[in-house]
Amino acid sequence: MGKYLMNIPLEDGLNKYLNEIKDLKNLEGEFIDIDNCLNKVTCEPVYSKLSSPFYNCSAMDGIAVKAKSTFMANEQNIITLKENIGYIEVDTGDPIPKDFDAVIMIEDVLSKENKIAKIYKPAIPWQHIRCIGEDIVEQQMIIPSFHKIRPQDIGAMISARVQNVKVFKDFKVGIIPTGTELINKEETPKIGDIIESNSKLFEGLILGYGAIPIIYPIAKDDYSQIKKSVLNALDECDMVLISAGSSQGREDYTHDIIADIGKVLIHGLAIKPGKPAILGYGENKPIIGVPGYPVSAWVVIENIVKPIINKLTYKKYSNTQYITAKLGKRIMSSLKYEEFIRVKLGKVDNQYTAIPIKQGAGTITSLVNADGVIRVAQNVEGISQGSIVKVELLKDIDEIDKTIVAIGSHDLIVDLISSELTKNSLGQFKLNSIYVGSEHGVLALKNNECHISPVHAIKLDDEDYIKYIIDEDISIIKLAKRTQGIIVKKGNPLKIENMHDLVKYRIVNRQKGSASRILLDNFIDSNNIKKSTINGYKREESTNMCVAKTIQNDDADCAIGIYSVSRAFDLDFIPICEHEYGILVRTKDLKEDYIKKLLDVINSNSFKKKVDSFGGYDLSQCGEVLKCDKSTN
Amino acid sequence: MGKYLMNIPLEDGLNKYLNEIKDLKNLEGEFIDIDNCLNKVTCEPVYSKLSSPFYNCSAMDGIAVKAKSTFMANEQNIITLKENIGYIEVDTGDPIPKDFDAVIMIEDVLSKENKIAKIYKPAIPWQHIRCIGEDIVEQQMIIPSFHKIRPQDIGAMISARVQNVKVFKDFKVGIIPTGTELINKEETPKIGDIIESNSKLFEGLILGYGAIPIIYPIAKDDYSQIKKSVLNALDECDMVLISAGSSQGREDYTHDIIADIGKVLIHGLAIKPGKPAILGYGENKPIIGVPGYPVSAWVVIENIVKPIINKLTYKKYSNTQYITAKLGKRIMSSLKYEEFIRVKLGKVDNQYTAIPIKQGAGTITSLVNADGVIRVAQNVEGISQGSIVKVELLKDIDEIDKTIVAIGSHDLIVDLISSELTKNSLGQFKLNSIYVGSEHGVLALKNNECHISPVHAIKLDDEDYIKYIIDEDISIIKLAKRTQGIIVKKGNPLKIENMHDLVKYRIVNRQKGSASRILLDNFIDSNNIKKSTINGYKREESTNMCVAKTIQNDDADCAIGIYSVSRAFDLDFIPICEHEYGILVRTKDLKEDYIKKLLDVINSNSFKKKVDSFGGYDLSQCGEVLKCDKSTN
Repeated sequence: MGKYLMNIPLEDGLNKYLNEIKDLKNLEGEFIDIDNCLNKVTCEPVYSKLSSPFYNCSAMDGIAVKAKSTFMANEQNIITLKENIGYIEVDTGDPIPKDFDAVIMIEDVLSKENKIAKIYKPAIPWQHIRCIGEDIVEQQMIIPSFHKIRPQDIGAMISARVQNVKVFKDFKVGIIPTGTELINKEETPKIGDIIESNSKLFEGLILGYGAIPIIYPIAKDDYSQIKKSVLNALDECDMVLISAGSSQGREDYTHDIIADIGKVLIHGLAIKPGKPAILGYGENKPIIGVPGYPVSAWVVIENIVKPIINKLTYKKYSNTQYITAKLGKRIMSSLKYEEFIRVKLGKVDNQYTAIPIKQGAGTITSLVNADGVIRVAQNVEGISQGSIVKVELLKDIDEIDKTIVAIGSHDLIVDLISSELTKNSLGQFKLNSIYVGSEHGVLALKNNECHISPVHAIKLDDEDYIKYIIDEDISIIKLAKRTQGIIVKKGNPLKIENMHDLVKYRIVNRQKGSASRILLDNFIDSNNIKKSTINGYKREESTNMCVAKTIQNDDADCAIGIYSVSRAFDLDFIPICEHEYGILVRTKDLKEDYIKKLLDVINSNSFKKKVDSFGGYDLSQCGEVLKCDKSTN
Repeated sequence: MGKYLMNIPLEDGLNKYLNEIKDLKNLEGEFIDIDNCLNKVTCEPVYSKLSSPFYNCSAMDGIAVKAKSTFMANEQNIITLKENIGYIEVDTGDPIPKDFDAVIMIEDVLSKENKIAKIYKPAIPWQHIRCIGEDIVEQQMIIPSFHKIRPQDIGAMISARVQNVKVFKDFKVGIIPTGTELINKEETPKIGDIIESNSKLFEGLILGYGAIPIIYPIAKDDYSQIKKSVLNALDECDMVLISAGSSQGREDYTHDIIADIGKVLIHGLAIKPGKPAILGYGENKPIIGVPGYPVSAWVVIENIVKPIINKLTYKKYSNTQYITAKLGKRIMSSLKYEEFIRVKLGKVDNQYTAIPIKQGAGTITSLVNADGVIRVAQNVEGISQGSIVKVELLKDIDEIDKTIVAIGSHDLIVDLISSELTKNSLGQFKLNSIYVGSEHGVLALKNNECHISPVHAIKLDDEDYIKYIIDEDISIIKLAKRTQGIIVKKGNPLKIENMHDLVKYRIVNRQKGSASRILLDNFIDSNNIKKSTINGYKREESTNMCVAKTIQNDDADCAIGIYSVSRAFDLDFIPICEHEYGILVRTKDLKEDYIKKLLDVINSNSFKKKVDSFGGYDLSQCGEVLKCDKSTN
């Protein structure tokens, strides 16, 4: 099978494709009721069927008069008018009878009693009258063709007595999930199964582009089954997306099926993630092979499928918003691809900082957690820390502005603070956490890349960690003394009792700068143990939860961690030491609203009660603020 | 009745109101199926019910191996592995059996035949394996509370086996149109009727804010009928909008009804249009009195109702986009109000120009035609021409960028060019016309405020108009010789034969700089006729169509105009003279794409045929380009 993966730059590939499909079948038009036309695109201009207003009417509350009869009026020469002959009462919008040609506002009428009105000011002909056609003249074109209908357009059409409008038909996009390993989300997954979620990701995105998604049943990795489904979808839709099977594996049929039904124009784009995208067509309709990994899929949908839909539906959804931000961490990038780097954003001291997060194409959470995306051009090898970069937003800027960025060490307490803070402020404040361990957290705080930094403060003989982090600018909000120790399997089958036992078994390690790593490294250094002899030393996880999950799954026997997490995963725990866990904050920020809200949460009884229920925390100093002042240290 | 209209600045009024309603009933939560949660807001954090992946699986197509057995492999020491014992074949996503702990990519496998695989590179433990929980760990919080659910969030929740999610219930907004003069859009309007269109305007806007609009039947101007409808809507909805009746007229009941049911907090905002807005509440739900004029209503919905809905639904729809533009025409503004000035936008020479258009609160077409809105602060008396202003966009910026701005004289031909251009370019190019007459059009072209200027070129004894407009920078695309004359009623009942007759009857005039106005002014000047003796001289309309409509309606007897329009309105016509009508364009722009497209339209037979069918045009030179060069003039 002739699968040859190209490496075409995104822009070139898209332009080539859009040019090739420009002669494909255009959308048909249909007349629809004005009630249902919002956001649809006109395929013909709309002409008024009635002037608006369609009779001369009053623009004010007052009296309609004959202007000529008022010309001599002034404060010395009050003019008296008789009702029905000299004037008639009118409210805004009331028709003006033929003989009358001006309106005097009620405020300018001296008196109006017993069917006699007195005026002291002349009226200029046609004053305060909305004449026929002032807004819309009959036969006038009111809405052009190829125009996306907005609420105000509907208002104007109704006023012009337009009752139906010719618009392009809905653009239907068929979505075919493929893969023998896929199961529907309602089924119970067994080892080897993957819950099919891409179709719902595509559906939501396509709805956002103003098209109509149609999800087809999962097709197994079977050439004829997929082909049949594609032919069926081509019949019912204006475009077809085939999810997965777009690469070069043994069971990747998407390329050959598109080539069989129609033509493959492009297979392989110079983007990461998203490389194995396929751009083809059949039966005069676009068929796109979308890679199976969710982030790859997202990149291809947003950057290939969206512009195709925009082009073919004549809608323009360019609502992407951008900001500029300072890059908080160096990005390494390949010269082979344009890369889409997902970042968290924080606004600290009126400057946005972008921090790249975990980038795997398979990690949908990188899209969930990201606030934005940086596109690194193909000809760029990387971007250095501190550079100013353009970021495409994945969240509303308001939400990002109200988000407290925490960079540091992970603990269940931080997750709890996050949910309590959001709840108490009714969504006004959110906490966005990046877990890099305490050491990097402190640096991030000092570099103004975050608002707060949750850290541990281990006291060991050779290292008073707390001294390192405290200087005159930074204060500590104390949270808890937490118990550090060895997490082992339920029932401790290997009878692990201390660190000497730990290093004999399969461990899982934490990243540098974390409390667990420091504890382990200090132990092996002082006991002259070689790192290479420890099974699993190189396997690093970034949170206590990942560590616990690895042990629960028997991919490791033991690891250093904290009590609360071992308990949450129903594992056993051998305590070793206690250390302080708290939140670092710039002293000058203690007066800020968000810190006050944070302290409200931390000092609440409901918070302390919940932390207590986790187990392994001493909360006796919780909420105390240690204002650090060089002179007192 | 105690109606007292305040004049509170928008920002102050809104803040006061939002503060007052912050203790009103909050939205309730409900569990819904994951299939229906797009764009809804979580009211609780969402936790994972399954790790993703939930088993160790291959991240590549290749073979799973035991890393230890590969450590000695190199190019000189090829290692041989037996299927099922030393290796197993795996595709991306396949589970890794317990005994295996690394994957070698198929590209790095030397050979694989007869159940024997040969490798030449050691495998690092856990390489190319996606471990349990790599993306999502069971029990981990994946979506925070108060979060608007996006497509990627749905993908993540499905992968984490979340099947339903607790979100805030839909926010329902009741819309009650009031007014005895209102009829439904399906009815046939009689004099005095107004076709009710505001409810559909509101509906579209509210849908855009992510809430659910419910339109109630029209309520007549009757206190108890409106009150009953409001009570009913309060029962069924989370917020109620009462359309019209918010001012101080005889039949304006909105204020008193809200005060009766609950409380009016604010009546009257310092905004124009939109002043008589009412901000109140009843039964713990917001009730807003929205002014009846469509543009006033639009301003109040966008600036009052939208932030209230955003606040109460925890959604943040701040998708408003802004650009900066050069103001093309002075804005006069009152110190009494913050004003919302609707403008057209054009991008000429990479600079946006904003040109204010007709501003009446009753003219919905000002919203239809506007590309943006400029907010003029209350403490500002006006903005001078050429100032740089911030403009809120009402259209997509892409659409504005592709729009050809025409400023000049109106003719049916321009409408036709507009619709043909859009049709031929499949919506890629649009023509946006502002009618100010030829003289102002020429100035606008010279000031770079527009791309083209449709103008007439009258040749009179004392004025060779064409000389005025032609210099070395500007060329003319000839369109037609058109017949100018006197438009009279069908059958010419007043037997008008020439200009001497015209000035004896009720006329309707055109704005300065238009061909008709120049013709009339030249005539009365050369005949020493006093303007004040002509009935209707001061009544100016800005297009031939408005003039014809006025005569058709018997608000005038005659006027100067063009033949094609008199025919379109079934009126009679007395020809007086012919003049050239064409399009001015900067000579350097003749090479631009949009001018080429324009010329394609003008030179097409279908275009000429359609113009011919209007009548009154001589097309013998249509499409000729008169490149003006000072030396040849």
